[in-house]
Amino acid sequence: MKQEPKSVNDLCKKTKDEISYDVKVKGIDFNNKNITLDDIIDSYATTGFQALNLHKAIEEIKRMKDAKIFFGCTSNLISSGIREVVRYLVEHKFIHVCVITAGGIEEDLIKTFSPTFCAEFTLKGQKLRENGYNRIGNLVIPSENYEYFEKWFTDLLDRITEGYTEERPLILTPSKFIRILGENINDQSSILYWASKNNIPIYSPAVTDGSIGDLFSFYHKRKCIKLDIVEDIRNINFESLGDQENGAIILGCGLVKHHILNANLFNDGLDYCVLINTAIEYDGSDSGANLDESVSWGKVKPNKTCVKVFADATIVFPLIVYSTFMKYKK
Amino acid sequence: MKQEPKSVNDLCKKTKDEISYDVKVKGIDFNNKNITLDDIIDSYATTGFQALNLHKAIEEIKRMKDAKIFFGCTSNLISSGIREVVRYLVEHKFIHVCVITAGGIEEDLIKTFSPTFCAEFTLKGQKLRENGYNRIGNLVIPSENYEYFEKWFTDLLDRITEGYTEERPLILTPSKFIRILGENINDQSSILYWASKNNIPIYSPAVTDGSIGDLFSFYHKRKCIKLDIVEDIRNINFESLGDQENGAIILGCGLVKHHILNANLFNDGLDYCVLINTAIEYDGSDSGANLDESVSWGKVKPNKTCVKVFADATIVFPLIVYSTFMKYKK
Amino acid sequence: MKQEPKSVNDLCKKTKDEISYDVKVKGIDFNNKNITLDDIIDSYATTGFQALNLHKAIEEIKRMKDAKIFFGCTSNLISSGIREVVRYLVEHKFIHVCVITAGGIEEDLIKTFSPTFCAEFTLKGQKLRENGYNRIGNLVIPSENYEYFEKWFTDLLDRITEGYTEERPLILTPSKFIRILGENINDQSSILYWASKNNIPIYSPAVTDGSIGDLFSFYHKRKCIKLDIVEDIRNINFESLGDQENGAIILGCGLVKHHILNANLFNDGLDYCVLINTAIEYDGSDSGANLDESVSWGKVKPNKTCVKVFADATIVFPLIVYSTFMKYKK
Amino acid sequence: MKQEPKSVNDLCKKTKDEISYDVKVKGIDFNNKNITLDDIIDSYATTGFQALNLHKAIEEIKRMKDAKIFFGCTSNLISSGIREVVRYLVEHKFIHVCVITAGGIEEDLIKTFSPTFCAEFTLKGQKLRENGYNRIGNLVIPSENYEYFEKWFTDLLDRITEGYTEERPLILTPSKFIRILGENINDQSSILYWASKNNIPIYSPAVTDGSIGDLFSFYHKRKCIKLDIVEDIRNINFESLGDQENGAIILGCGLVKHHILNANLFNDGLDYCVLINTAIEYDGSDSGANLDESVSWGKVKPNKTCVKVFADATIVFPLIVYSTFMKYKK
Repeated sequence: MKQEPKSVNDLCKKTKDEISYDVKVKGIDFNNKNITLDDIIDSYATTGFQALNLHKAIEEIKRMKDAKIFFGCTSNLISSGIREVVRYLVEHKFIHVCVITAGGIEEDLIKTFSPTFCAEFTLKGQKLRENGYNRIGNLVIPSENYEYFEKWFTDLLDRITEGYTEERPLILTPSKFIRILGENINDQSSILYWASKNNIPIYSPAVTDGSIGDLFSFYHKRKCIKLDIVEDIRNINFESLGDQENGAIILGCGLVKHHILNANLFNDGLDYCVLINTAIEYDGSDSGANLDESVSWGKVKPNKTCVKVFADATIVFPLIVYSTFMKYKK
Repeated sequence: MKQEPKSVNDLCKKTKDEISYDVKVKGIDFNNKNITLDDIIDSYATTGFQALNLHKAIEEIKRMKDAKIFFGCTSNLISSGIREVVRYLVEHKFIHVCVITAGGIEEDLIKTFSPTFCAEFTLKGQKLRENGYNRIGNLVIPSENYEYFEKWFTDLLDRITEGYTEERPLILTPSKFIRILGENINDQSSILYWASKNNIPIYSPAVTDGSIGDLFSFYHKRKCIKLDIVEDIRNINFESLGDQENGAIILGCGLVKHHILNANLFNDGLDYCVLINTAIEYDGSDSGANLDESVSWGKVKPNKTCVKVFADATIVFPLIVYSTFMKYKK
Repeated sequence: MKQEPKSVNDLCKKTKDEISYDVKVKGIDFNNKNITLDDIIDSYATTGFQALNLHKAIEEIKRMKDAKIFFGCTSNLISSGIREVVRYLVEHKFIHVCVITAGGIEEDLIKTFSPTFCAEFTLKGQKLRENGYNRIGNLVIPSENYEYFEKWFTDLLDRITEGYTEERPLILTPSKFIRILGENINDQSSILYWASKNNIPIYSPAVTDGSIGDLFSFYHKRKCIKLDIVEDIRNINFESLGDQENGAIILGCGLVKHHILNANLFNDGLDYCVLINTAIEYDGSDSGANLDESVSWGKVKPNKTCVKVFADATIVFPLIVYSTFMKYKK
Repeated sequence: MKQEPKSVNDLCKKTKDEISYDVKVKGIDFNNKNITLDDIIDSYATTGFQALNLHKAIEEIKRMKDAKIFFGCTSNLISSGIREVVRYLVEHKFIHVCVITAGGIEEDLIKTFSPTFCAEFTLKGQKLRENGYNRIGNLVIPSENYEYFEKWFTDLLDRITEGYTEERPLILTPSKFIRILGENINDQSSILYWASKNNIPIYSPAVTDGSIGDLFSFYHKRKCIKLDIVEDIRNINFESLGDQENGAIILGCGLVKHHILNANLFNDGLDYCVLINTAIEYDGSDSGANLDESVSWGKVKPNKTCVKVFADATIVFPLIVYSTFMKYKK
């Protein structure tokens, strides 16, 4: 019969001495005076769990200082106040290639005309529908916002399709089309405005998957304009080539995550990467796939310091930008 | 001072008699003889939590019997054994409009040449990379599989672009292009094969977001072929129109979920809807948005029986098809 | 400057030949006739993601055939129809040591008097409160159920505390107390009934954390009875000792997961382990901790086949029992 | 046949005018000078999603200013740097009743002897085991830390059990026992030290579920000491009674969440409540149950402003304490 343990020591039998750890866990001490955000961020380095991952993300972004930065975010974040943070990054050329889903492209434009509002997660859908509000989490967008946008958008389509016919259509790519939108939205609060001004491409291969697509569906000259995704995929894939190091900051997942990581296959994988999302890996989705899965594909270089922060970007991304890009500007 | 409670009865003060419930919770009794899957599925109706939601999903799909069914799934499920289940649905015309992400389109084709393998979630990325395996959750795809696909794909591109030039390019939509792929993949194990044979459109607005896009990027005549997403968005939006009822079955989220729900705006919202995914609503993502959020947008009709099953589709979808479409066939 | 890739082959550079995989992914083919649950379960082995993990869990439980099995579940599952499945396991002595949280102990008893009902996740709390319904996910328990239980429970307390005083109190442990409850609940639908009949201990160190505790709080002779947790912790810790192999099946997490794994420290770790829950590891919680974390503590033996299924137990546990314990009985 | 929509306006038919929203979504503008943490926290109110919920949590805690505050946290947070934040709250009597799981009680004490270290989520369990490190998420605790604790703990047990016998055992409750631990740990970094000094009770009904229980299991006079959970449940339940308002702040879930909410049944439900955790509601677990489920039980008063923040507490709790309790002190 096996030997029964006689004390707690018998339960933990150290047999080797190959590894050791020395960074002590220690949280912030609120007894100190004049605590600032910098103090709290510093304390995250020794607080553990996602606070530690958030601190690693900040360090990773600092390492991207001279890298070409691919930035991705899902539409809900453009609906949220993260739009202003992204606009800041684009305005000051802190990020160099963007991937934003269709809803984010249109929401950035719509918000220049009329606002989105704070609300609650638990509002009843039918009542909102009857009152003309469309819910996004705990935010709502009035249906009338889409009407203002429709007028602006179809006027623009009229201008750019002038002279084109079904037989000789205007052929653009989504990124070129988004650039035209940016050139025509005369509003400094807009991400697209600054992206076009600063020559920052915004890729969105499924840009028609939303209100823009609905408007195209009704547009009388819709056959006179084509958005071609073949040319754009080469464009983004070749963005990663060159001698520079490449980094990625991706808020949310789905298309935006895959599109950026896949493009970086072309340069043997990202040198730096920060993911912020809440997707889990257990269902085998690319959304929830961890960074080590990306290494197997060659999308991220091995032995690198890339990190995923399991968090809602609305909380952590302002803290990250505060601790990184904002400091560069000063 | 407030009255202190004197017994447990004081803690639960029923004051109204407006609602009551009568379906008793009762699980399956394994003391019964010859228990079958049908018995277990039946027991889910009174087991609660996601078993109950799974049962509701089955009932919802039964209600779709005469409806036009929009089916969506993410690429990881085509990498998994769910591909064979989807192929069955397409082969027998049980579903009528498909949305599948780029990775799913190419994996369906690649699997006709060479297999994907079962592996583990915890394999190290660098070692896999060195050995030519790409990981998807607990599955791996050999890199050489992409080589076979490359040859087949570029040969096909050569044939279909014959006679087209940069100035006069071949203009397709993603769905038409996917149909051509299906017409040329001579293999009855393929979803695309049966979809083209059975005239079932497969939409995939970002079909270039993956290996197909990588191949296009290197393809010498890439400027002679265009994939236009404007025409396709009208196509899918108008799929929902008509006098029929519309239903949706969506495995996973991101683009496939939004694309189907958005299209059903055009007919005042889906009559029936089953979602199967693991995304949470708290980050405001469309992926995690609950069905009542969809009601606010008019994507789903109010007062309907639509249901989300919080589960991995690899487990529950075979059970669902067993309990619904498979029975129709017999 | 780095060499640009010229083809997709350049993107995947296999450099070693150390590992290979050979189990091909293949889902169930519904074109086959007379598909049974066994066929579907078999197909999970080659379907991937959580279906594959579910299949591994079934194989792991088959390996437990001669092991001592620790079974844990949270209270919500006893509220659900999983109660009948657990009762089956206890009735036939398929499991040997149980850990069930307080709510599960009382719900098992309460259900012998009056039922819990199926309802919906989205019912409004205030309306339920006014109508005397307490919600648990998509189930509800009428408040009056607690009244029946109160009478039975205080009558029993009166009997067992007879002759005991504050100075000379009755000292039990939670597991002994639960055994007495089982001996007095004359109902074959009860888990506690069969556990006491079959000498299967049920541990629940915080058994007062719920209705039982509320009743004790009001009980006039509450100072005459003590539930001591010191003796019980030795009891469960020493359950793991001996020459037998030990296995664990744990539905849900929190206390039940930790209590079983910690007890198995005493025998150098579990030989077999199946976890079924939806908790994530990123917040550092023991609930979400993966099995490799448990290896570091010596709670699970290294190089073992233990597996976590990321799923709601209401769906998967009936499938597991069907494929394992039910077959033994035949 | 139904009318086809002719424009986007036809897709959104506002029919009522009963509700409206007016708080505009607007994120922080990093173009402003000298941005502070207060500015970022203020911006969360109009950023949406979990940032908005975090802001609501801060407002809710401000409303607790004169309330009796029940504070709960799981052990992993005491392992993390959140221990220092909790110690601050206890030191300054900002919280009034605590519930902490077993691992948190012992980790608070162990950390006074020797530190826990920062590490990584992906370390291999077997290697850690061999090197004497126990992993908790991305933290590790050396096994030798438990040896120091064992000596201190058994010395203390020797002292307090002096004069007691098996026939006449020392009967304590977990909360009294924890208070004795606090009185004997002479270290101002300890939560237990300050709790005993400031008469703040710490409840932990399953305090033996961990290292303390392992030590009791081996302790030679273990039959001379009893920890009774009956008296403690009355104690915590009656904590909620009185004319004061009651609030709760709960980090993590499982036992700590249920224990605090259940106790507040006795006073008709909490007046204020902030939950911070990552558990989902779909599996019917009490851990993931939303606050409206708690309303149905009478654990939280209806029509209240209670809020759950879906987040890892290591990130958000320092921000919360900064914005609330720290300001009171100044």
